[in-house]
Amino acid sequence: MNDHIRFDRDALELHLLDQRLLPGEEADFVCRTPDEVITALQTMVVRGAPAIGVAAAWGCALAVSRTGDGDGWRERLDAALEAIADARPTAVNLRWAVERMRACRRAAGDVDRPALLELFLREARTMQDEDVAACKRLGRFGADCLEDGDTVLTHCNAGALATAGYGTALGVIRAAVEQGKRIRVIADETRPFLQGARLTAWELHQDGIPVTVACDNACALLMQKGLVQRVVVGADRIAANGDAANKIGTFGVALLARHFGIPFYVAAPLSTIDPQTADGTAIPIEERPAGEVTHAGGRRVTPEDVPVYNFAFDVTPAALISGIITEAGVLRPPYGPAVRAALDEAATEARP
Amino acid sequence: MNDHIRFDRDALELHLLDQRLLPGEEADFVCRTPDEVITALQTMVVRGAPAIGVAAAWGCALAVSRTGDGDGWRERLDAALEAIADARPTAVNLRWAVERMRACRRAAGDVDRPALLELFLREARTMQDEDVAACKRLGRFGADCLEDGDTVLTHCNAGALATAGYGTALGVIRAAVEQGKRIRVIADETRPFLQGARLTAWELHQDGIPVTVACDNACALLMQKGLVQRVVVGADRIAANGDAANKIGTFGVALLARHFGIPFYVAAPLSTIDPQTADGTAIPIEERPAGEVTHAGGRRVTPEDVPVYNFAFDVTPAALISGIITEAGVLRPPYGPAVRAALDEAATEARP
Repeated sequence: MNDHIRFDRDALELHLLDQRLLPGEEADFVCRTPDEVITALQTMVVRGAPAIGVAAAWGCALAVSRTGDGDGWRERLDAALEAIADARPTAVNLRWAVERMRACRRAAGDVDRPALLELFLREARTMQDEDVAACKRLGRFGADCLEDGDTVLTHCNAGALATAGYGTALGVIRAAVEQGKRIRVIADETRPFLQGARLTAWELHQDGIPVTVACDNACALLMQKGLVQRVVVGADRIAANGDAANKIGTFGVALLARHFGIPFYVAAPLSTIDPQTADGTAIPIEERPAGEVTHAGGRRVTPEDVPVYNFAFDVTPAALISGIITEAGVLRPPYGPAVRAALDEAATEARP
Repeated sequence: MNDHIRFDRDALELHLLDQRLLPGEEADFVCRTPDEVITALQTMVVRGAPAIGVAAAWGCALAVSRTGDGDGWRERLDAALEAIADARPTAVNLRWAVERMRACRRAAGDVDRPALLELFLREARTMQDEDVAACKRLGRFGADCLEDGDTVLTHCNAGALATAGYGTALGVIRAAVEQGKRIRVIADETRPFLQGARLTAWELHQDGIPVTVACDNACALLMQKGLVQRVVVGADRIAANGDAANKIGTFGVALLARHFGIPFYVAAPLSTIDPQTADGTAIPIEERPAGEVTHAGGRRVTPEDVPVYNFAFDVTPAALISGIITEAGVLRPPYGPAVRAALDEAATEARP
């Protein structure tokens, strides 16, 4: 599962495995323009903060390729990049990725469009490769948090499909399995978009890692029955104080885990940490179309004219998080200093 | 919504509104035999503990009508009644209803089959009428627990459709609205069977009571946002100590309500209290077919060969319950003595 984001350099096309069709059908959604990438992001052809970042980086390259050579291409490119950064509000990796492309452009100085395209293609490729490498590193750190025989509950999909490959929460599980630990997984189905039922179950089953799907409602009972030893989830944005936005329902799972004394880990690359966001109250929570709730499996399940809530994310307070698993190690409370130190060290290493 | 359980005396047919088809279609499922009633119970044509009890009572009458006059009809009837009582394990109202028909039979002595049929038809009608009356009484008691302007979150459907009419949790809401209180409702969609999205939203919308549907995952966020002032749910069985079995997910909602300091009420008729069950650990939890989880809206959402959990109920510990709203008043902790007193008083009143 490392080819669900695939860029065709000859055709200048971004091929995204259309995650809306899984597990029933495996088909690509092909993007030739930045607007098609925005559509892919907004309709969740591709989702998951790190994957969103990588797809956005390729989208920036497509923006360069499509902006035309005529007067004002630089301004048109500016607008296209900003539109990509604005496609969805919660995952900070999206804006982070676009900012990184902008920094690449600034560093290059006054280059022409073909040269900039080459730079963007190289940078996007680097970001995609770095994301896989970050997942593998954080997976190894996280694996030490799991014990042989554990059943790990996860919410939504923080797997290969949510990243450039390998996964964050599922990367931790994969690394533990590679260490020889016997790990079982419970995948919350994760209404409304069913990323757990459709995506997490699909990719773990492909890898031969035992997975059982449960309705989100079963979480308290499964924990009460002693069927869950650890919770590991991903994140869409981690604030400077460690508060972590993730798929709607994660906060509830964290509260239940605390009640039952079950360790609760967030696994995410450093690119998901937003030092500009002081705490969770400053994280914008996307509200998505009502149709995701009014319909299930394509069929209407609510009466006409009845409104619905469809907040896509919630914020788990840092106090409920046992550790934040990153490629720089497992951060432990208090998260303010730990986050700062990890980001400072990464910045130092990145300097030439 | 008082005619979703309708017995046709001339045709000796039980007409049940087929709740599996709501909200898209309103059609009856007609039972002419006790086996058809068992099918209706097991496939959730009709569900909700009080409604299950009433449907079972009519099923007992159908058993008398269908057992034939030949030798051994009493033994065949015994077997049919036991099969009805065994149709589903968790809701105590089912066995309670069959026991009540048996008591009616014992009281009648050695009557012939036509006479017993008359008695059973009269008893089933009485039980149906009593259930509506109990809901209205408990609704009035419960309404005093709600304040003008409250938004009440409910899980699953404990409404008219779950009873002979009016509802338990939704009866409380209806009574509060009748008192002139402005009440809004948040209906958890309640995967896997979506009773909240399909049934609670449907019957409240029909009554003009404002209702918004939310995925079960949204509960913690909605509470955190201050959008929920009270939780009121039904029950399938309440143990002697006040532990209450209800639809899967209720226990999680109760834990979240406790975390946010939101009062959490259980509304149920006394027939849902089982003094023979000492506490929640003794309540059998039904596991239902995997297809309810592997499919949503009729479409497969999990990969083939991936197992699922489908526990249909969980048990909310008495310690998380602010009050148990019954037709004998609102029981308050400690529930052991309160439950005993309510049942003793009801038994005294029932004595001729």
